[in-house]
Amino acid sequence: MNSIPTNRIEAFSDGVIAIIITVMVFDIKLLAEPTAISINNELLLVIPKIITYVISFMMLAIMWVNHHQLFHQIEKTDRKLLWLNIHLLFWMSLIPFVTNLVGTSFDLWQSAMVYSAVFLMCALAFTLIRNYLIKRDLLFQHIDKKAQQKIKIKNIIGMSIYALAMVISPINLYVSYILVLIVPAMYFIPENIKTIKNE
Amino acid sequence: MNSIPTNRIEAFSDGVIAIIITVMVFDIKLLAEPTAISINNELLLVIPKIITYVISFMMLAIMWVNHHQLFHQIEKTDRKLLWLNIHLLFWMSLIPFVTNLVGTSFDLWQSAMVYSAVFLMCALAFTLIRNYLIKRDLLFQHIDKKAQQKIKIKNIIGMSIYALAMVISPINLYVSYILVLIVPAMYFIPENIKTIKNE
Amino acid sequence: MNSIPTNRIEAFSDGVIAIIITVMVFDIKLLAEPTAISINNELLLVIPKIITYVISFMMLAIMWVNHHQLFHQIEKTDRKLLWLNIHLLFWMSLIPFVTNLVGTSFDLWQSAMVYSAVFLMCALAFTLIRNYLIKRDLLFQHIDKKAQQKIKIKNIIGMSIYALAMVISPINLYVSYILVLIVPAMYFIPENIKTIKNE
Amino acid sequence: MNSIPTNRIEAFSDGVIAIIITVMVFDIKLLAEPTAISINNELLLVIPKIITYVISFMMLAIMWVNHHQLFHQIEKTDRKLLWLNIHLLFWMSLIPFVTNLVGTSFDLWQSAMVYSAVFLMCALAFTLIRNYLIKRDLLFQHIDKKAQQKIKIKNIIGMSIYALAMVISPINLYVSYILVLIVPAMYFIPENIKTIKNE
Repeated sequence: MNSIPTNRIEAFSDGVIAIIITVMVFDIKLLAEPTAISINNELLLVIPKIITYVISFMMLAIMWVNHHQLFHQIEKTDRKLLWLNIHLLFWMSLIPFVTNLVGTSFDLWQSAMVYSAVFLMCALAFTLIRNYLIKRDLLFQHIDKKAQQKIKIKNIIGMSIYALAMVISPINLYVSYILVLIVPAMYFIPENIKTIKNE
Repeated sequence: MNSIPTNRIEAFSDGVIAIIITVMVFDIKLLAEPTAISINNELLLVIPKIITYVISFMMLAIMWVNHHQLFHQIEKTDRKLLWLNIHLLFWMSLIPFVTNLVGTSFDLWQSAMVYSAVFLMCALAFTLIRNYLIKRDLLFQHIDKKAQQKIKIKNIIGMSIYALAMVISPINLYVSYILVLIVPAMYFIPENIKTIKNE
Repeated sequence: MNSIPTNRIEAFSDGVIAIIITVMVFDIKLLAEPTAISINNELLLVIPKIITYVISFMMLAIMWVNHHQLFHQIEKTDRKLLWLNIHLLFWMSLIPFVTNLVGTSFDLWQSAMVYSAVFLMCALAFTLIRNYLIKRDLLFQHIDKKAQQKIKIKNIIGMSIYALAMVISPINLYVSYILVLIVPAMYFIPENIKTIKNE
Repeated sequence: MNSIPTNRIEAFSDGVIAIIITVMVFDIKLLAEPTAISINNELLLVIPKIITYVISFMMLAIMWVNHHQLFHQIEKTDRKLLWLNIHLLFWMSLIPFVTNLVGTSFDLWQSAMVYSAVFLMCALAFTLIRNYLIKRDLLFQHIDKKAQQKIKIKNIIGMSIYALAMVISPINLYVSYILVLIVPAMYFIPENIKTIKNE
């Protein structure tokens, strides 16, 4: 009676993620009302915005898939889990802001740094949830020690790459952007780890 | 345990489509704060935006109806289906952008071309989902060979018309717009094909 | 298998209405970044926008309540009902546009006319749904002839008042606004009519 | 048949709150397209907006948690409860407006006053719902007299602090902001009161 059921958390998270992923597109606009002469140029100027949108869309979609995969394994929830999830949603909600920043000024290293910083925080928020679930044994399935180790290492690598992207951004912002793209590729296929059914 | 259930995918898609269809209306605004003298003119200038909005609203509504009709027949889902659906949502999410473009500059052929291009991609995304479902036998009902052939031909015709609209847009953009309108009319009534119940 | 269940239509309508009702608030903004001197004046200028927002919020809330009340009585759905509902949502989706228009230019009769026109269309869309449900006998409960007559008269009165508000707006826009406010008051308490249970 | 079920009210409220909490982020934008020289300064100027966003996000999250906690205990709903909930959502929907106001002009006392006023109204709306539920005995569980007293006192304290924040804002706006922050801290942990199961 006192805890919010998993499906409510999922439905709320779905709503928030659906809004984040969709409303980003409303920053894709021509800068000025185009004329027959200016439109080709105006459309060209929109291309970096569209590319950034595609990447952020992909990243949010991957997070959505992993979020569901994770919450589908949860047996029971508690207050702390609820707040860890809100913490994750907060960082995800900043993605449209940084997407817009990169879309308008992808050639400034500050954009690359802020962009990777937000994704670092999202990855951290995911790791906090997963660690908490394992620590409190809130999952349907026991995960064996080896698999647990494997996930931890993967998470540390992912967050390290984002941190590296941040640090490298003032030196070479293209390397920074490439590093940011590596992590979602790593997470595109979610964990398919050996588990022992909880009895 | 490892696949996202159909109703979650439908709920997420519903959320995204509801946002796309609704938030488009926020681009319908008067250009300047009107005065007693200017308001009639300002309201007249809004009319092309409203017409484009009506058309995009209709098209998204048709897609929503067909999306549900299709997902209602799905027996089981898998990761690839999930990503094919995200791919569809991505192209649908660009509809507000192209709607705004046509609403502000319907007399430029580039608007007509980009508009038909996005709808071509939506139609392609739908076809990819349907083909995958048939190939992997993920539907509740077996569809007989004849009906399957009929759907394939219809899809090819639909996509060809959008492609034609793209190609024709630099020559005659009004023909291009008319072509774009033909396809939703074709899909207004969803497939009512003979099926053999899956046993 | 071929019809969309009532709860899907309700969920989608809920989503659309939730977005319409909420996103309206984003038009409430100060015109310029305020200073210590200008802020009182800037806040005063926002008041008509807030008043219009309150009214539109109330009207959408009443529609939402009546929408649910109505759809809760529906036994089965069909394609035509689905499209009648989309037709209703379309007119509701224009409410933020006309709210913004009245909020910025409530002293122009064109605002009052367009505002009442959109609500007239919403009322018409509701009437079309109700008439269709009765004609096709899609409700759980039979409604006796007398009650049916009563509802029809109420709907005609409501739509007549909106039509009158439209016609009167160029003559006296304050009377027009008052007329618009009478109808929601009429519908604030939904139908509580005698019904005969469907057996 | 005549009342809207609890889960519908919750789903609609979830939708509205998800939109409010997410769309606020779209006010976080750089004022001008940044250059290599201006970007650091532009990003610094965004910081007060982000801080305000974090606070409003937290407050809305706390309200969402408490909303669910409360509605989860509701056994039956009626029309008045429905409208009390719409009343709450109305005041919550103004949070993005006041957040934007504080984000752009946190150094003006009017911002602090309007900000605390909206939260006062949210707290009042919550109190009205809770009082109504207790008065009409719509909860699953009977709450003993002592706990009831405790909640009432807590609500009065919360609202008094917001009212104090309003009054103090012209004198010292920093004290006003601190007062506003105290209340959510009080409500961060929802009621965990002794209850007697309803039989």
